[in-house]
Formats: sequence, C-alpha cells, structure tokens
Amino acid sequence: MKTYFFLLSVFIITVSAIAQQPAGSPTPVLYSDKTIQEMKKIQKAALASDYGLNQVRHISNNIGPRLSGSAQAEQAVQYVAAEMRKLGLDVRLQKVMVPHWVRGEEKAELVEWPGMAPATTQKIVLAALGGSIATPADGLTADVVVVNSFEDLATLGRDKIQGKIILFNNKYDREMAASGFGGAAYGQAVAYRFGGAVAAARFGAVAALVRSAGASQNRLAHTGAMGYQDGVEKIPTAAVSFEDADTIADLVSQGPVRLHLLLTPQTLPDAPSYNVIADLKGSERPDEVVIVSGHLDSWDLGRGAIDDGAGVAVSMETPFILKQLGLQPKRTIRFIAWMNEENGGRGSAGYAEEQKNKMANHFGAIEADLGASHPVGFVFAGKQEALPFFTPILNVLWSQGAGIAQVQANVGSDVGPMTQQGVPSFAPYFDQRTYFLYHHTAADTFDKIVPKELAENASVVAVLAYGLANLEQPLPR
Amino acid sequence: MKTYFFLLSVFIITVSAIAQQPAGSPTPVLYSDKTIQEMKKIQKAALASDYGLNQVRHISNNIGPRLSGSAQAEQAVQYVAAEMRKLGLDVRLQKVMVPHWVRGEEKAELVEWPGMAPATTQKIVLAALGGSIATPADGLTADVVVVNSFEDLATLGRDKIQGKIILFNNKYDREMAASGFGGAAYGQAVAYRFGGAVAAARFGAVAALVRSAGASQNRLAHTGAMGYQDGVEKIPTAAVSFEDADTIADLVSQGPVRLHLLLTPQTLPDAPSYNVIADLKGSERPDEVVIVSGHLDSWDLGRGAIDDGAGVAVSMETPFILKQLGLQPKRTIRFIAWMNEENGGRGSAGYAEEQKNKMANHFGAIEADLGASHPVGFVFAGKQEALPFFTPILNVLWSQGAGIAQVQANVGSDVGPMTQQGVPSFAPYFDQRTYFLYHHTAADTFDKIVPKELAENASVVAVLAYGLANLEQPLPR
Repeated sequence: MKTYFFLLSVFIITVSAIAQQPAGSPTPVLYSDKTIQEMKKIQKAALASDYGLNQVRHISNNIGPRLSGSAQAEQAVQYVAAEMRKLGLDVRLQKVMVPHWVRGEEKAELVEWPGMAPATTQKIVLAALGGSIATPADGLTADVVVVNSFEDLATLGRDKIQGKIILFNNKYDREMAASGFGGAAYGQAVAYRFGGAVAAARFGAVAALVRSAGASQNRLAHTGAMGYQDGVEKIPTAAVSFEDADTIADLVSQGPVRLHLLLTPQTLPDAPSYNVIADLKGSERPDEVVIVSGHLDSWDLGRGAIDDGAGVAVSMETPFILKQLGLQPKRTIRFIAWMNEENGGRGSAGYAEEQKNKMANHFGAIEADLGASHPVGFVFAGKQEALPFFTPILNVLWSQGAGIAQVQANVGSDVGPMTQQGVPSFAPYFDQRTYFLYHHTAADTFDKIVPKELAENASVVAVLAYGLANLEQPLPR
Repeated sequence: MKTYFFLLSVFIITVSAIAQQPAGSPTPVLYSDKTIQEMKKIQKAALASDYGLNQVRHISNNIGPRLSGSAQAEQAVQYVAAEMRKLGLDVRLQKVMVPHWVRGEEKAELVEWPGMAPATTQKIVLAALGGSIATPADGLTADVVVVNSFEDLATLGRDKIQGKIILFNNKYDREMAASGFGGAAYGQAVAYRFGGAVAAARFGAVAALVRSAGASQNRLAHTGAMGYQDGVEKIPTAAVSFEDADTIADLVSQGPVRLHLLLTPQTLPDAPSYNVIADLKGSERPDEVVIVSGHLDSWDLGRGAIDDGAGVAVSMETPFILKQLGLQPKRTIRFIAWMNEENGGRGSAGYAEEQKNKMANHFGAIEADLGASHPVGFVFAGKQEALPFFTPILNVLWSQGAGIAQVQANVGSDVGPMTQQGVPSFAPYFDQRTYFLYHHTAADTFDKIVPKELAENASVVAVLAYGLANLEQPLPR
C-alpha cells in the first residue's frame, strides 16, 4: 500500500456503543434472522478454513515477487483468474497499461570518511526506489550532504548542494509506530521517499538517498514509489537502511564523506497487464455490486506476502466460502485483484474510468491492504449516518475481537477513486505495530503470515461483504 | 562469539543468598573499607561515562567490519594500541598468524520449482560461511535436497544425495531463545553450520546450505565459521535466511527445486596480525594479572558492534576509569583485545602458548563477548568454593541490577584455554533474548548499542576487575 491515513477519530462505533442507543429510536429492518445466521456460518467457516493461507502461500512462494510488468505479475493474473473460474464465477481480465520498471544492480560504498583504514571501503545497504533512473554505467562518486528535512535543504542552498549526494535523514517515528500508528509514522516519512529526488535536484544534487520509510531493525532498505517532475532534472534515488543512514550521518558529523553509487534500473515501455475481475452474481439485485479486493502486484525485493498477497487471498476467500456454504448473496459480490497499486495505480484508475457511469450501482467497496495481523474491525470511508447500519455485522464480528468500526477519510488507494465518488468504502483494520517492520522490504515473505490472523481477516472481509450484499436498506451516501 | 554454554545451574549466588549464610561461618577479610568505597566510585564513574560508547562507535562506524587479515583489522589493532598508550599503559602487540578469508560475490537463485512462471528465477538470500571454498567461476546448478538433521542425511544415503545441494533446515529454537536462552538455542543450531559441509560431502553433495543459526526475522543470513576435514572433499557452503529456508522447504515438498549458486570467496595465505596487550601495573603484586578482554576481529557482513566492539570497548574502559579516578590496582590489570576469535582463535591460542608457564600468575580473566544488553551479573568458571569471595563485588553491582553470579563450565572462547588451566574466568552475563537477532549478520551495527546498557557492562567489568585485582585473599582454584 502506498497511501496513508491520519486518524480522523470522527466517530468510532462499537457494539457496546450501539447497545446504548435511545430505546425510542426508529429501527429500520436491516437483516432477516436468516441472514444473521448465514453471517455467523460464514464467520465460522472462514475462521476454520485454510483456503486463504494456501492462496497466499502459492502467490508468494510459488509465484514470488510480482512487480507490474513482470512475468510473475502476468502469471499471478492467470493463476488467480483460473482459481476464480474454478469457483464458477464470471471472470474477466480488464486490460490496463502499466509502468514496467526493472531493478538492476545496486551497490553503494563509502570511499572516503574520517578515520578510514587506507584503501578500504565500507558497504552501504540500499535499494533503488521504484521509478528511479540509473546512475552512469560506472556509477557516480560524490560527497554526501545530510539533511533532516526539506527546510534544511533550502537553508543550505545550491552552493552547498550542487554536485553532492543528498541523504534525507528524516526518521521514521518508531514511538508513534509502537503506539499502533504505523501508518501515520509511514505517512510522515514517505514524503521524503516520494519527493526527495525532485527536491534535491532543484538544488543541483546528483543523487538523492532517503532513510528508509519503515521500521526494519535488520539493515534492510524499504523500497517504494518515487516521483519525478517535468522540468526538474531526473537524478537517481534509493532508500538506505536506517543503520546506514545513522552511520553516514555520524561520519558526516566528523568530516567529509564520499560515496560511490551504482544503480542500473531500467524503465521499459509500458506493458499490458490486467485487473482480475470475478463476479458472484446476486440473486435479487445483480446490478448492485459489493467489491472485495486486494492488489496482485508487489514490490520486487520480497515476495509480496503481507503486501498484498494476503489481501488478495482473503478477498478470494469470500466467494470460496459462499460457494462452500451454498449461499448466494442478494447483491453481486465482485472480487477484484488490482494491478499496479504499488507504482502507478493504473488498475484502480482503469476500473474507475470504465465504471464511471455505474458508481451509483457500487453499493460498497472493500479493500484489504493495510496489513495482515489480527483485525480489530474495519475502517469506513463514507457518511457517518451509515455507521448504525453496520451494527448487526459488528455484532457477528465482535465474537472474534473485530467489533470496531472507525470512520476515516480514506481506506485504501485502489478503492480511493470510488471513495471520492461516494461509494461507501471499507478495509479490515489493525494496530500497525508490526506491519512496517517488513513493508516493502526483502522480508515481506510468507512466514510473516500468521495462519490464525489471516483466517480472521478472511472472516472480516467475507462477513462484511455478505452483510453489505444482503442489507435490506440502502446505505446513506 | 562462537562457543556456547549450556547452563549448569550448579550454583547461583546472589546478594540475598549470601546474607543468609550461617552467622558463625569464619569470614576471611576480603576487602578493606577503602577498596569497597573505591569499587563504588568506579561503578559510579563507569555508569556516567561515555568513553566506551565513543570507542565502540569509532570501532564500528569509523573502522567498520574487521575480519581477521583485513586492513580494517590491522587498523583496529593500531587504533586500540594508540588509545591504550594515551592512557599511559604498557602496550605491546603480540604477533599471531591468522586465517585470511575474503568474501567475494555471492548469489543464489531458484531456476526451477513447482508452479514457477516461465523464464523466471527467484532470489535466495544467503551468505558464504567463513572458510568456505568458492563454487566454479560460473557457479553450480543442482537440485536441492532438504534435511532436518544429520540423521536424515544418513537415512537418505548417497543415492539421493550424490550431486545435489543439501539444505540443512534445522531450526533455531525461537521459543528457547525467547525464554532467555539464546546461547543454548544457538548451540543447537550451530552444529549444522560448522559441520554441514563435511557431513553433506561424505554423501557426495556438491554444496551445503544451512538455515541460519540465529533469529533474524528480516531475511538476513547469519554467517559464521565452518570446518573442513582432511580426507573429505571440500564443498562450498553458505547460510540462508530462515525465510528462504522455509520457502525452499515448502517448494521442495511440492516437487523438484533446482538452484544456481555462485560463491567466490578466497582463502589467502595466513596473515600476520596481533593481540593488543596493555598493562596497568599493580602496586603490590604486579606479577599477578587480572585480564579484561574482548575480541577485536569481527565478521564482515555487519560492523562488529555487539560482536564484539562492545566487549573491547567496555574492557578499554576499565583502565580509563581507573586512570580517571587515580586508582592503581594492587594486582596488574591487563587489557587484551583478542585477534581472530571468530574464525580460528589464533590470538587466544597464541597467548595461552606464550603464557603457559605463567598461568599460576593469572589471578582471573574476564571476557566480554556474550552480548551487550543489560547485564544481570556475571558468569564464573572455576571452583564453587570461590563464589563467596565475590559477595562484596556483587553487593556493589546489586544496586545496578547486576548482583547475580552463576557458575558455568565455560564463559568465553578467548579465555577458554586459561579456564582449562584453572584460571578463574568471568564474563558479564545477560538474558539473551535479543543478541541472536543480530549476531553475525549485516545488522550488527552501532545503533544496536544502547548507551545505558553499555555503561552498565563497563561498570560490571571495571568493578569486577578492580575487585579481583584488590582481593586480600587468594581465590580457591
């Protein structure tokens, strides 16, 4: 996931809060008893199922990293489409053209620093940011200037930056993350990852390094998307591990530090790729759609297990469970595996464009891309007046510790265009203390998936999707 | 550190236990009140000092990794010797010939596995083990066989192993480590790291991979020493991250997995290097020696901060603090920065050989190489009857939460030869829940040092060293 969320705390609804509603309030009929019982069956089946686990295992271990445009991304499209056909869904591939960036060799080493042993170098761990241009073929060598903010850069000015390598040393706020707000800490740090190259190039820097936007303690770089701007020179850019950022900053505080940087990524022509879209037709209102979704592309350093193999897998599990139980929803449940969330959002944009005249028929959209640990409930982007409609769903989820709904402005980047057009949007929600330890690193691997927690996520998505699809009332929007 | 310790639990002494001694026991005079007050002053000064912190910072950040035979190891020798001369100590360099192994390129990728996308590969994170030979220049490619134990290997036999790459998938016991026994968990796992290549080669394997002996959760390989045996073919060997071991094992359980492995390490001729030995002469018994020590060499992946820049730094701090306070010990305190602990033990062996006729004059030997977190006291290898002699020292250390002494068979590999010859031996001691997250990985970097905890270690070493050097009685031995 690339977007982030400052908590609005506008309204938090829990089962207990609902229980305190004034007794005289008019209560619309939201669900039949039968539907409530079906939601409980779905929950029970999802909590017991290993379908999602096997899917994320296959997607991350057998297919592996799936950066947009890669052979693995294409294979993942075909694999997921085939799995959805096996379930008997109506499957189509929506073509989108995606960026095709390929990581190359990457190597950095200090070649001069205070107190160095003669004729030695010191390795710096880094990873090119997605979209970065390459250095010259034999690399570039320049002194390093460390700044903590964009303001520092402006204070130094062109004289001190021209020809230098800039290290943006803004720190990921571990204390904020340790309090559960990993997404907010990420949001603060990611501005430098995305905008560092442009900011540094404006002052004549030859390369921009960025302290990793994430919490790995094990000398891993957190990659991610970056942006160039028309009219500003493109310079190569990479994320360094926090350990190396600390070391460079320490050495620069003592005297001149010179670094050799070699990056050989390539940006190939845009490539065709696909959103996988699979419909489980509704029995009563087939034209109204409830989306369950995750994104199929991943960064290339790890194997895309938590970001976002898990989201795809738990979304696949919703139709699987309904088929297993022989339940047909009243509205259509549409599974979507988005393409290109990480470095372009072309899948999301393509779908929003295709469906722009059908947004009113999108009853709700769920995106699972905020993590894969124990869900405490879900976040909701939409009208506050809609919250009481979720009470019966939360009543079911309460028994698994997921009975909280919280309003946020956004819940995910792939459903974002729909959110903006008023489609009620949802995402399973977590405390985020651990997610950013691994996010966008080589360590995003299958072992990070806790089977019980994945099943809990599958349950949240399935119960919520079925609940929305069978709601007897329209949602305020 | 490379040795490990099963807890003997023979005797744990604490301040409170001592307080319960029968009132009638004869109590030898261990210390004058003046010495007790001096120990408290040393403790206070050490807890307030940043000398050790600055030393480990310089050693790890400015000098960097210090594998035996490297330019950085040589520089570290010269640096530490100069620092000890600055303090006015008698400094000498004891020459030893050390192995000179140099890591080269290392690359591994799956080239065939069940469900792979056509024409793709999947990266495997690994690190050559110290001492490994190289693969052929263009690497080698073979099917992978996964075993969980040496017994599994024997069960499979030569027919199924000949020509294959063996992955020893024995798991580091995280639960044992989480209970505080990281060293014991390491001990169980390290047998495969050290002996895997020989065991696999006996059955005709072409390479041996070993699941990392350590607890990194961030896709890092834990390197370390391995051994070959005369008469058994040498095959290349490397540690893989636990994540990659899991993935390979998962894929092998589904069908054939083929891996391409390239390692280009070199074993150069043995190189001259040095133990740094610096004496702070005793005032009353200058021929009796109390050693404070750590090892100066480190593995090459990280920067050797916790293993064992910290041990060297806290040992350097003992003479620093004594000089700062104007205290001269009664016995000589000898600082030693050992060379080549990690892959040969040549420094330790050289010193033991040189001093073999002077062991009786070695009153005690402290080695700091078991970690660098909050010390709970020290471990002791020697006669149980000696334990009560440490009560006054433990009384001082109690106030910083380090009042426990525990008997173990060994306390460290560098003082090991002295321990075997009856020299009472000591090491600051910790719970080891975190040490093996970073041990022998690229993440052994300066940021892992917690300043307060390092100062606590410096205090334990200095108080213990001064206490031993000023003890009014001989220790039972």
